[in-house]
Amino acid sequence: MTDLDLSRLSLNQMTVRQLSLPELTDACAASGVPGVGLWREPVQAYGVRAAAKLVRDAGLTVTTLCRGGFLTAVDPDARAAALADNRRAVDEAAVLGTGTLVLVSGGLPPGSRDLHGARERIADALAALGPYAESHGVRLAIEPLHPMYAADRCVVSTLAQALDLAERFPARQVGVTVDTYHIWWDDTAPRQIARAGAGGRIHAFQLADWTTPLPAGVLNGRGQLGDGAIDLRQWSAYVAAAGYTGPVEVELFNEGLWERDGREVLAETVERFLRHAAG
Amino acid sequence: MTDLDLSRLSLNQMTVRQLSLPELTDACAASGVPGVGLWREPVQAYGVRAAAKLVRDAGLTVTTLCRGGFLTAVDPDARAAALADNRRAVDEAAVLGTGTLVLVSGGLPPGSRDLHGARERIADALAALGPYAESHGVRLAIEPLHPMYAADRCVVSTLAQALDLAERFPARQVGVTVDTYHIWWDDTAPRQIARAGAGGRIHAFQLADWTTPLPAGVLNGRGQLGDGAIDLRQWSAYVAAAGYTGPVEVELFNEGLWERDGREVLAETVERFLRHAAG
Repeated sequence: MTDLDLSRLSLNQMTVRQLSLPELTDACAASGVPGVGLWREPVQAYGVRAAAKLVRDAGLTVTTLCRGGFLTAVDPDARAAALADNRRAVDEAAVLGTGTLVLVSGGLPPGSRDLHGARERIADALAALGPYAESHGVRLAIEPLHPMYAADRCVVSTLAQALDLAERFPARQVGVTVDTYHIWWDDTAPRQIARAGAGGRIHAFQLADWTTPLPAGVLNGRGQLGDGAIDLRQWSAYVAAAGYTGPVEVELFNEGLWERDGREVLAETVERFLRHAAG
Repeated sequence: MTDLDLSRLSLNQMTVRQLSLPELTDACAASGVPGVGLWREPVQAYGVRAAAKLVRDAGLTVTTLCRGGFLTAVDPDARAAALADNRRAVDEAAVLGTGTLVLVSGGLPPGSRDLHGARERIADALAALGPYAESHGVRLAIEPLHPMYAADRCVVSTLAQALDLAERFPARQVGVTVDTYHIWWDDTAPRQIARAGAGGRIHAFQLADWTTPLPAGVLNGRGQLGDGAIDLRQWSAYVAAAGYTGPVEVELFNEGLWERDGREVLAETVERFLRHAAG
C-alpha cells in the first residue's frame, strides 16, 4: 500500500516547462493537483513575490524549490559565491512558502579526481547553510543523483552517502530527497529509505521512470510514469512504510514531453500517477 | 603502490577494434604488451583454434574472453539457449587458453520491473554453469556494470551485488571483474575489493576512464586513461592491496579512438597506462 491519492500529488514545473507559471498554476488548479515544485530561474524571471502570490491565489502549495547546491568548488571566491547563492535560494523558498530546498550537490571541480574531498566540502557548506535555512523555516534536502552524474553534476550518488552527510546535522536543517529515477537500481536503497524515515529526514519524494536508450548528455531522458523499468508503486510503498506522508512530486526532464501540449502532458501525468503509483 | 608495470598489461581487443586479430597480436608483441583480452565475435569470425594459435605464436597470453552472460530471461527456451551459448563460451575460453570468462549478466526482460527476480535467475544459471566452467579450467567473472545499464544490459550494478552472487559458489568457479569505469563513483567499492580479494574472487581487473558528456546510448564513451575523472592509480592500489597480482586489462569503447590508427591508439594506451596506473 502506498496510501497515495491525488491529494498528495505535486507537479514539478520542469515536467511541463513549456507552460508559463500562470498556465501551470491554472492547469494544476483545474486538474485538482494541489502542489507544484518550482525552479528558481523561472520564478526569478516572473518575480519571486509575484510567483508566491500567484500560487497562493490558485490555492496551491509549493512543495519544493529546486534547487540549491553546487557546493564542491575549491576556490575560496567560488565557494563564497556558492554560499551566497544558496542563502538567496533559502530566502526565495521562504517567500514562496515552501519548507524544502532541494540541493544538487555539484560535481568534481575541473581536473579533480577527489570524490571524497568534494563530499567533505559539501559538509562544510551545510554547516554554514543549515542554521541559516532553519532560521528561515526551510529544510535542505540533499538529492543523491544517479551515479552517471557523479563527475559533472553531483558527487552524492546514493541515499547512503546523502544520509551520511545529512546526519551530521539536525533533521530540521538537513535531510534528503528520494527520487526513484536516481535510486531504483540500488538494492540497498529500501533500507536507506527506512533509515531516512526513522530519522525524519525524508524531506522530499519525487517520481520519474527509467527509459532507454538514454539521450546524449543523459539529462533529458526521464521517462513518463509507467513507460519504464521502475516499479513506482513498490518505491512509493517503501517511502510510505518509512512514515512519509508528504507530497509526491513528479519531476520529468524529457524532450519528447516538452514538445507536446503542456496541459495534455499534465493530464497524462495525473492519470499515470494514479495508475502506477497511487493506491 | 600499485606494483604495476608493462609486464602486467593486457590490451582488450575492443580498445582497438579497428585492428584485425593478426594486426592486434603483431602490434602487442612489438610493443611489449604481453596480454590480450579477446571478444567472442571476432574470434569466432577468425576461427577459435586459429586465433588460439595466432596468439600463442606471438608469445601472448589471453587474459580474458568477453563475454558470456545475458542470463536473465524468463522464457524457458530463451534460458536454455543462453545456457548453451555460455557453455560454448566456456569451450572457446578453454581453447584460447584463458582461465577467465567475463560475464555481463543481462538486463530486465521486456516489460519486467523485477530486478531482484532477474538477479536470482542469474544465480540459478551460475549453479549450472559454474561446475561446467570448472571442469574446463575456466572461472566465471561476474562484471558489475555501471547502474546506468541496469535496465537494458546488466542488473548487477555494484561489486557488492556481484559478490553476493559469486559467494554462493566456490571461488574457483565464480568471481568478479573489477572495472574502474563501472565502480569509480561507489564509496563502498574499496571495501568490496578487499572482500573480493580476501575470497580469491578478483578474476579480472580492467581499466577505463570516465569522461563526459556521455554519448547517446552511453555505450561508447569510455575515456582514454588519464582523460577523465577516475583516479586510476588509487583503484589499482586498492586491487593490489587486496592481493591481486594478475593482468590489468585496458578496455575502452570509444568512437573517437576507433576512428584513429589502431597502432597509434595502442601506443598511446601503453603510455597512458604507465603514466596513470603503473608505479
